[in-house]
Amino acid sequence: MSKFAQTPEPPYYAVIFTTVKTDDLEGYAKMNARMFELAKQQKGYLGIESARGEIGLSVTYWETLEDITNWRNHAEHKLAQAEGYATWYQAFATRVCRVERDNFYEK
Amino acid sequence: MSKFAQTPEPPYYAVIFTTVKTDDLEGYAKMNARMFELAKQQKGYLGIESARGEIGLSVTYWETLEDITNWRNHAEHKLAQAEGYATWYQAFATRVCRVERDNFYEK
Repeated sequence: MSKFAQTPEPPYYAVIFTTVKTDDLEGYAKMNARMFELAKQQKGYLGIESARGEIGLSVTYWETLEDITNWRNHAEHKLAQAEGYATWYQAFATRVCRVERDNFYEK
Repeated sequence: MSKFAQTPEPPYYAVIFTTVKTDDLEGYAKMNARMFELAKQQKGYLGIESARGEIGLSVTYWETLEDITNWRNHAEHKLAQAEGYATWYQAFATRVCRVERDNFYEK
């Protein structure tokens, strides 16, 4: 199960972040890796699952809504968000969710 | 925004389905396409967003928890689930969530 986020018993919270990129991705990979590392260090961070196809889809998991708000307002993350708006993202959707129940299976 | 699910004002519901596949994917693509079509026909279905990398990640959106339960228990979907357990999925995680708030951006 190590490829999946190791989340506790519900309830906990998820941020579903869906993106369509522009063609101007200079600096994106480096910033994305940095935000990945920085998120891990935040209070209440539980894990991430992400994949990329026609759209990018990342789900981060958090203990509380307050943890999500704190991460959204983190100074360095704010700078990354501004660059995302200005340059990298053609469109995105952010959805903040309460995980009500979950189910895991492994062969 | 057409690459994203066209969801209404919150609250609505999301099912986050994360998968790691086996190497035995005979029949998978066809079944996946069929389930995609069948889901669209269900009451309360709002849309899907999906991408594939090291893991597969699909999020379907629904009006109510009851719609999600009905889809889980749909006879043809049950058969597909059984084949997924037996053959295609090395591991998976299913998380049922209530979307509390959302935010959209497009250039």
